[in-house]
Amino acid sequence: MIIDCHGHYTTAPKDLEAYRQRQIGALKDSSPFSFDTLAITDDQIRESLEKAQLKFQRERGTDLTIFSPRAMGMGHHLGNATTSLEWSRVCNDLIYRVCSLYPEKFAGVCQLPQSPGVPPANCIGELTRCVEELGFVGCNLNPDPSGGHWSDPPLTDRFWYPLYEKMVELDVPAMIHVSGSCNPNFHATGAHYLNGDTTAFMQFLTSDIFKDFPTLKFIIPHGGGAVPYHWGRYRGIAQDLKRPPLGELLLKNVYFDTCVYHQAGIDLLTKVIPIENILFASEMVGAVKSIDPETGHYFDDTKRYIEAVPGLREADKRKIYEGNALTVYSRLKTKLSVSKANRAPL
Amino acid sequence: MIIDCHGHYTTAPKDLEAYRQRQIGALKDSSPFSFDTLAITDDQIRESLEKAQLKFQRERGTDLTIFSPRAMGMGHHLGNATTSLEWSRVCNDLIYRVCSLYPEKFAGVCQLPQSPGVPPANCIGELTRCVEELGFVGCNLNPDPSGGHWSDPPLTDRFWYPLYEKMVELDVPAMIHVSGSCNPNFHATGAHYLNGDTTAFMQFLTSDIFKDFPTLKFIIPHGGGAVPYHWGRYRGIAQDLKRPPLGELLLKNVYFDTCVYHQAGIDLLTKVIPIENILFASEMVGAVKSIDPETGHYFDDTKRYIEAVPGLREADKRKIYEGNALTVYSRLKTKLSVSKANRAPL
Repeated sequence: MIIDCHGHYTTAPKDLEAYRQRQIGALKDSSPFSFDTLAITDDQIRESLEKAQLKFQRERGTDLTIFSPRAMGMGHHLGNATTSLEWSRVCNDLIYRVCSLYPEKFAGVCQLPQSPGVPPANCIGELTRCVEELGFVGCNLNPDPSGGHWSDPPLTDRFWYPLYEKMVELDVPAMIHVSGSCNPNFHATGAHYLNGDTTAFMQFLTSDIFKDFPTLKFIIPHGGGAVPYHWGRYRGIAQDLKRPPLGELLLKNVYFDTCVYHQAGIDLLTKVIPIENILFASEMVGAVKSIDPETGHYFDDTKRYIEAVPGLREADKRKIYEGNALTVYSRLKTKLSVSKANRAPL
Repeated sequence: MIIDCHGHYTTAPKDLEAYRQRQIGALKDSSPFSFDTLAITDDQIRESLEKAQLKFQRERGTDLTIFSPRAMGMGHHLGNATTSLEWSRVCNDLIYRVCSLYPEKFAGVCQLPQSPGVPPANCIGELTRCVEELGFVGCNLNPDPSGGHWSDPPLTDRFWYPLYEKMVELDVPAMIHVSGSCNPNFHATGAHYLNGDTTAFMQFLTSDIFKDFPTLKFIIPHGGGAVPYHWGRYRGIAQDLKRPPLGELLLKNVYFDTCVYHQAGIDLLTKVIPIENILFASEMVGAVKSIDPETGHYFDDTKRYIEAVPGLREADKRKIYEGNALTVYSRLKTKLSVSKANRAPL
């Protein structure tokens, strides 16, 4: 089985974005806005997926995508905590419908109703609803709800701890994922995303967060930002700071996905990061949509790169494709066992 | 000849830091502060280098370091434009003394008197002084003078153009280099530095700055931040945005150094980035000071990694070690020719 741990609903029916624009517009002019004005049909959902995510799953031979609302669309910096809660509920409900229509193709991960300056404890309700009522297996956590101004405390601050307590209790991991940038310095997918990844890793390296939460799990997407490329730098900085070796300090809690869009990058990732810490992902349909003229294949067809890593053993590929995801997203494992049992002949 | 294009005076005599503390202190309590209270002897300078940069040059077999004030120490976010000008002059004068004491071992690069919100045109005077009077060959340009708040316009904004005009006129490149971070989200050497590199590259990718300044040259340090590791992503984003191929768009103007502290990183860098765009550097004595227990050598002994790149041709090594640096730092080439001529027997 090949599990893609990083997919966003970037192809959602246009009504969703129109709804969001109405919500944001109502904030500006204080006009009345009804929370229940979104009417997307099952057919619209099917159509939005059949020509995109499902088509690529079939063509590339991947099986299940861990699926969450569009990251750029989370827009935690817009409006306030109420805006974010309403918007998160709408987006998460739509992911739930996707997963209900295609239970073998998608598993849900939720957007959290974060808002700059608002304690993350505020997200516990929506996280719990998504996990316990909608059957989601994880959440996306924005390390910078301000959208490029980085005005909240680091992820390792106690500000975030109540949310982590709930994650541990529910046994769900978080993918560290920023949203769009409202700071003109940062292009979203080309800078802000990767900076968010690099920043989060370094926050973990300098803290004792995993002493406080030994079972807390984070996935750092986009191949870990700059981290694997600078693995020597990080090993060295940790050593200079008298921190424990990285394996001991954070590799029981921090994982990297494979959203790196060329062979040399994936070769490096699988060479320097322990195989147990790598989860297959493509981010499709996402940051890069086109075909690489150098290879003739989609940039984001990351399975091809994994397959072509020199000397990568079959057992290691199985870990990257499936085993590690089932370890990190432990609720997915339970979900799949139940689903398999249900399918078994009587 | 082996030119290390990225060295900071991190080992400057302690009096320099004490001076800086007095300067900052005077800002806070408005106490009188004399600009001329720094007294560092030539012997102190010699001692600060002999046991550090010069020792490593000898041990590692490198010849000349392009040398600038400590990056973390620039602290453009402290005080105002006057504070920065005074401090830059002091730091640059000290680099000048280093280069005068060891003209064959160091070439100067200046710190600029940047200050958040202050137009970079304000730096033209000090840049001109350093290049024309002190014989410096380049400058360090901080893309975020706010120290982690990213409150100034992107490097591609016309805000920066007057400084670029002067750089072009003087024919000097800039290394894009942030200073310390006063934002608790960003560890300086582990996150802010690399984020600055990644951010600057993406700013260039989305702009036409090099149409406006066809001969402007930038070095992106720390191996280009996250960029080479995500080279496929950048090629893809450029293509999706209908930008020209990266080679055409920016590789006549943007260069990467080799401050990547493990073999796999340097292997990737030299594989995906054209050899003509790579400049040897170590950042010693800098971000990582210790010995890698996996190799038994200093993490920042980057020459070892270059030497060990599989299949890297001797001619390519010469470009990385010397040729490219002389192209980018054209004033260094002139300087070395003059120096060589002076040494030649009559």
